[in-house]
Amino acid sequence: ARGTVYLVGAGPGDPELLTLKAARLLAEADVVVYDHLVGPEVLALVGPQARRIYVGKERSRHTLAQPDINALLVRLAREARCVVRLKGGDPFVFGRGGEELQVLAAQGVRFEVVPGITAACGVAAYAGIPLTHRDHAHSCTFVTGHLKDGSCDLDWPALARPGQTVVIYMGLAGLPAICERLIAHGLPPDWPAAVVEQGTLAGQRVVSATLATLADAVAAAGLESPCLTIVGEVVRLRDELAWFEPRT
Amino acid sequence: ARGTVYLVGAGPGDPELLTLKAARLLAEADVVVYDHLVGPEVLALVGPQARRIYVGKERSRHTLAQPDINALLVRLAREARCVVRLKGGDPFVFGRGGEELQVLAAQGVRFEVVPGITAACGVAAYAGIPLTHRDHAHSCTFVTGHLKDGSCDLDWPALARPGQTVVIYMGLAGLPAICERLIAHGLPPDWPAAVVEQGTLAGQRVVSATLATLADAVAAAGLESPCLTIVGEVVRLRDELAWFEPRT
Repeated sequence: ARGTVYLVGAGPGDPELLTLKAARLLAEADVVVYDHLVGPEVLALVGPQARRIYVGKERSRHTLAQPDINALLVRLAREARCVVRLKGGDPFVFGRGGEELQVLAAQGVRFEVVPGITAACGVAAYAGIPLTHRDHAHSCTFVTGHLKDGSCDLDWPALARPGQTVVIYMGLAGLPAICERLIAHGLPPDWPAAVVEQGTLAGQRVVSATLATLADAVAAAGLESPCLTIVGEVVRLRDELAWFEPRT
Repeated sequence: ARGTVYLVGAGPGDPELLTLKAARLLAEADVVVYDHLVGPEVLALVGPQARRIYVGKERSRHTLAQPDINALLVRLAREARCVVRLKGGDPFVFGRGGEELQVLAAQGVRFEVVPGITAACGVAAYAGIPLTHRDHAHSCTFVTGHLKDGSCDLDWPALARPGQTVVIYMGLAGLPAICERLIAHGLPPDWPAAVVEQGTLAGQRVVSATLATLADAVAAAGLESPCLTIVGEVVRLRDELAWFEPRT
């Protein structure tokens, strides 16, 4: 009898932001395969019977290459009943979940997908920044700061628009270039923008500034990846709506 | 002693997609104020001690106007310890959560925000459609089909771009116009697009087509609002990745 691979989103960090379904599957799993974005507080929900396999991957230090992860999942599904593939955030938003599932599907492995709170939603909630707002943003766009080929060649004309919130995943290294390009493509230099480190966790730090000043402010504060960057008028609402008090 | 208002996302429909924190607060709440997008299976998690207040709102049939909801929350926070304001999906993505919190903040009411699985993430996961994928989409954009003034005047040049997934919340009435405008602004008529009704629930139905054929296909299938529309090459991956088998 073959097992099922559950592709599960672990949410943005706070373990109470796991879904009921994710928590149930972690408690029941025979084996849990997880990334570095999954923290120890989330792993504490894994049942004592489960084998735990860490597969990386931090920037430019991949513990297992993607094809090896894919092969591992196929093999585990033949050995175990309940295999949880656990990823930070939501597995279908910059999680490469689709690529892993395509391999499983081609090999005839059964799978299910359990969505998680994507970083943009979790971090925005704990930072007091609504992603949309009738007066400020009628749409929100999620992009990633590093692309397949290592460059940061985003679709700037589509991003540099008023009435929109842009959320950049993992873009700290490219932050100065990103802010410059958004200004070059028409957003005002004093357009609000913020970077959040360890969003939703006790160590959360938020640096709020403008496109012109953000990169310097983030460097001065010494923020470290992984971070999330939010760009748009809604960032200003944080002055009224910040509520989460992390340990300092 | 004044209470706290918890602005809580109920997720996309499946009650197992509530967060642990949302479920805990529903069990503990003194009063729960909820919208029509919150289903009976989610409300079953509300503790027996809690007062339940339904405040609408379906399209053009608002049970309580927004200013009345705001005033109600302020009053309840003065009477009760734990007030849960429960909204479908994520309260900061087209949920008007920011507007409600601004009123609470101005009145000095304490609040917290509990993010939920936004409809785009939940529905995509259960429909087998990754929102991003290295080969097909480096960004995803969420927009809403009806705007403040009742029109559907979206930023078409920003939406009609390859390499991007567009998710339209609640846009069934405007669907023919939306597909036409996306084609007029440069997306190919055979660009993949899907509409999902009752996503993540037992009654989930998915109609998958192209921009040219979607509106007719949806009408033929008799889908009803609320629905979610997903536009982009990733929709094609559903042929490989569909896994959820709703009751038929």
